[in-house]
Amino acid sequence: MPWTYETDGAAIYRQSFATIRAEADLGRFDADEEQVVVRMIHAAGMVGLENFVKMTPGFVTAARTALENGAPILCDARMVSEGVTRFRLPADNPVICTLHDPEVPDMAKAMSNTRSAAALELWRPHLDGALVAIGNAPTALFHLLNMLEDPDCPRPAAIIGCPVGFVGAMESKDALWQVQPVPSCIVEGRLGGSAITVAAINAIASRKE
Amino acid sequence: MPWTYETDGAAIYRQSFATIRAEADLGRFDADEEQVVVRMIHAAGMVGLENFVKMTPGFVTAARTALENGAPILCDARMVSEGVTRFRLPADNPVICTLHDPEVPDMAKAMSNTRSAAALELWRPHLDGALVAIGNAPTALFHLLNMLEDPDCPRPAAIIGCPVGFVGAMESKDALWQVQPVPSCIVEGRLGGSAITVAAINAIASRKE
Repeated sequence: MPWTYETDGAAIYRQSFATIRAEADLGRFDADEEQVVVRMIHAAGMVGLENFVKMTPGFVTAARTALENGAPILCDARMVSEGVTRFRLPADNPVICTLHDPEVPDMAKAMSNTRSAAALELWRPHLDGALVAIGNAPTALFHLLNMLEDPDCPRPAAIIGCPVGFVGAMESKDALWQVQPVPSCIVEGRLGGSAITVAAINAIASRKE
Repeated sequence: MPWTYETDGAAIYRQSFATIRAEADLGRFDADEEQVVVRMIHAAGMVGLENFVKMTPGFVTAARTALENGAPILCDARMVSEGVTRFRLPADNPVICTLHDPEVPDMAKAMSNTRSAAALELWRPHLDGALVAIGNAPTALFHLLNMLEDPDCPRPAAIIGCPVGFVGAMESKDALWQVQPVPSCIVEGRLGGSAITVAAINAIASRKE
């Protein structure tokens, strides 16, 4: 006997978001933030994630305005750049991931750092006013913070800082939160990753649920 | 003052896996399973995930043998196919995601189902002996189970069933676990997603940590 299940994508989204809003503790977020956090919870399949999400005031507006003005989205991993839903982007924004550029392995060796960190050096021509999305590598977020210590380094419009894991993830996000070089969003602690990061981008890109 | 942090990728992996093995409850897994589960925990940034992971006996061997024999990896989403670390693959295995094939939207309409489910119809020529990895869409996993109800449908070698979310994810994974058409791995409940799925593939592909 065939399995029966909900096959209407729009209905699936509606029910999912209704369940999240019924279960999650979203009171401390404003309307714009709430929509982003709901989508992050959705991607993680985890009510409770909201307790780890922190956004600086004006983060969603800064990130959304940047996208509306055509800003590129700079991603640390292909799983992030591939997840961005292109038709949600307000200005056919470029989605850039430099991790697999052929010069990156040699740059990493020269810098004694990971390829994920080295790849950010190739962001410099795109960084001014960009939306940065780091959903994988703590070393990328740390390296970005060090790049931004140079006052001549171009400033992104906003940073989604959601690297995941057990070494450096918590520390790099704490560092971003401490410095707040531009409006930022983090997921505190070990949780994070490409799916949650992509969800934040997709929610910022369009209010449509 | 620049931030200092661990910049040696190999050391980051070593420390991460050591932390996971110190904290997680891995006693019920055999050595091959343990290595897969550790990587899944790593990708999720979440000790405790192990309590939701279920593998049928022989799952890792079936999936690994298939890859060693050149089997393709069939993925329901680009975030899954993009995450597979190519140099870990034992036989330069094809990694296939049909979701964005141009005929899929019309097929979905004709089937009154999601694009994620419809895309699986294009798997049929590759399905025999393949490693299936569903890390996003519950509708894809349900549709696969319905395809496999036809005894003439080719059988994959193994299924990683890790769709995520609030509508159908738990139910589709329970259904897979109930039927067990081939050796399978699931993450019970709402948790799952592309990162966890990719981690399982990458661990199966190579024992190298």
